[in-house]
Amino acid sequence: MKTYLECIPCFIQQALGAVRFITDDERVHEQLLRQVIIMISEMDLSVTPPAMGQKFHRLIREITGNNDPYEKIKKDSNQLALKLVPRLRSEIQNSLNPWETAVRLAIAGNIIDFAKIQHLDEKLIYKALEDSAVSPPPASVINKLANAVEQAEDILYLGDNAGEIVFDRLLIELMPRAKVTYGVRGKPTINDVTRQDAQETGLTDIVEVIDNGSDAPGTILETCSPEFRRRFDKADLIISKGQGNYESLSDSCKDIFFLFRVKCAVIARNSGWAVDSLVIQRQGLNIINNRRRVKYGY
Amino acid sequence: MKTYLECIPCFIQQALGAVRFITDDERVHEQLLRQVIIMISEMDLSVTPPAMGQKFHRLIREITGNNDPYEKIKKDSNQLALKLVPRLRSEIQNSLNPWETAVRLAIAGNIIDFAKIQHLDEKLIYKALEDSAVSPPPASVINKLANAVEQAEDILYLGDNAGEIVFDRLLIELMPRAKVTYGVRGKPTINDVTRQDAQETGLTDIVEVIDNGSDAPGTILETCSPEFRRRFDKADLIISKGQGNYESLSDSCKDIFFLFRVKCAVIARNSGWAVDSLVIQRQGLNIINNRRRVKYGY
Repeated sequence: MKTYLECIPCFIQQALGAVRFITDDERVHEQLLRQVIIMISEMDLSVTPPAMGQKFHRLIREITGNNDPYEKIKKDSNQLALKLVPRLRSEIQNSLNPWETAVRLAIAGNIIDFAKIQHLDEKLIYKALEDSAVSPPPASVINKLANAVEQAEDILYLGDNAGEIVFDRLLIELMPRAKVTYGVRGKPTINDVTRQDAQETGLTDIVEVIDNGSDAPGTILETCSPEFRRRFDKADLIISKGQGNYESLSDSCKDIFFLFRVKCAVIARNSGWAVDSLVIQRQGLNIINNRRRVKYGY
Repeated sequence: MKTYLECIPCFIQQALGAVRFITDDERVHEQLLRQVIIMISEMDLSVTPPAMGQKFHRLIREITGNNDPYEKIKKDSNQLALKLVPRLRSEIQNSLNPWETAVRLAIAGNIIDFAKIQHLDEKLIYKALEDSAVSPPPASVINKLANAVEQAEDILYLGDNAGEIVFDRLLIELMPRAKVTYGVRGKPTINDVTRQDAQETGLTDIVEVIDNGSDAPGTILETCSPEFRRRFDKADLIISKGQGNYESLSDSCKDIFFLFRVKCAVIARNSGWAVDSLVIQRQGLNIINNRRRVKYGY
């Protein structure tokens, strides 16, 4: 999807969040923000929001020499989520339908997104988990995802954020692991998952993990490594977590299940789901040999 | 108060709101927004937020040739608020303490602020009025305002927004009107009150109305007319409505009661009150002949 004018205030908020993770010096905040604002004033709105995010987050890293402003917050997010695992695993195992519960929790975990939040708020996460039980995605849709997973031979599961990856792991534990590959970003960007997060949270112990070679906070195929693109093309089912992946892949022809929590009015309008909804949206299904894009949400 | 970096996303949101009131042409939105963003990238953060707002709202009006993008929304806001008058007046008259009720409703009416909201939402206004009964400012503080009004000889009541002005009128009806002057902006800016709003809502029939000669969305004395500044200096009590007036007068030495609803994290931090609070804050009291600034909130 393209970038909307409403994305711009959000970009500036994100940039401010990033520079504040790097230093407490308000003069530096101001200098960096001015440069980001100039970059944004010249931006091409036809690119996706993650393409724009990739540019200004890279600028901030380059100017400050800080390669990973969110390093600590990612570690903290992983630790916090790992602490919840016994409770979540028990909730999944003791539920009437463990698959439904695991899917719902995996989407709820998408709340841990530092493109949108400014600090790690345990209460916010607990509330998101509780809310997910009140307003889960429809069971029929969750079952369609189960059928697609069963029928697929090669599943690429695209992760989104640190912390959230732990919730992904609990869902992947219910899949035939041999056919699942977990995709992470190639380099640090915001609090998005990298190979390090997959190692810290044990993902690398249960499935193959591939990094996409890119520092975009999404999956912009043109910026991904040839190896990742081959894997992406080969997969017959993509499970895509989060808004960044949705924003960058919503025009793809692949068979993709997007799983995300709607976190802004732009995505609400684009996807047709209200803010705070937990969404499963299937899109880009290839119908036999007719490679037309079919968009339908559940 | 100075402008904070967090104000910048809000400026851009405001500018987007303004250009959307002028035209539906998305190319024009984009062109205008780019120019506003460039202006913001060069801004001096030591000025107050209304000083910055004055600059970019003026730029939008000049480029588009539209002198009052919010003209219709101001008329609609006034009409909506006037429709509520019988109900509000009855609520005030039948309450145990009509002064307390009128003060509380006048502050609640500060919700109608198009620097923060994008469309006129009746439900939002009703909710703000209902909420004000649940969390009113403390009665002791409301009584201090009553005492100050009683003791003052020359009161300048600075209005903020269209629609909200009707709530101001219901409060002013309980004051000794002969000593009250109501201040409005000199020219249109956002949905701020001008003389036309005072006429439409009957304010001009009950008290003297003075315009400040300025197009700032606040009261920046340096940009006000000499006549207004003389009146401001002469007043022994200022009642100041809204965030814009607070932002531009919070460093004043005058005896000012600021009445506003906290609508953003910046004002929450600066004033010490949580977002959505209804605030009465007295500031800048001149103690006898010692013109030092004493800041204390209630």
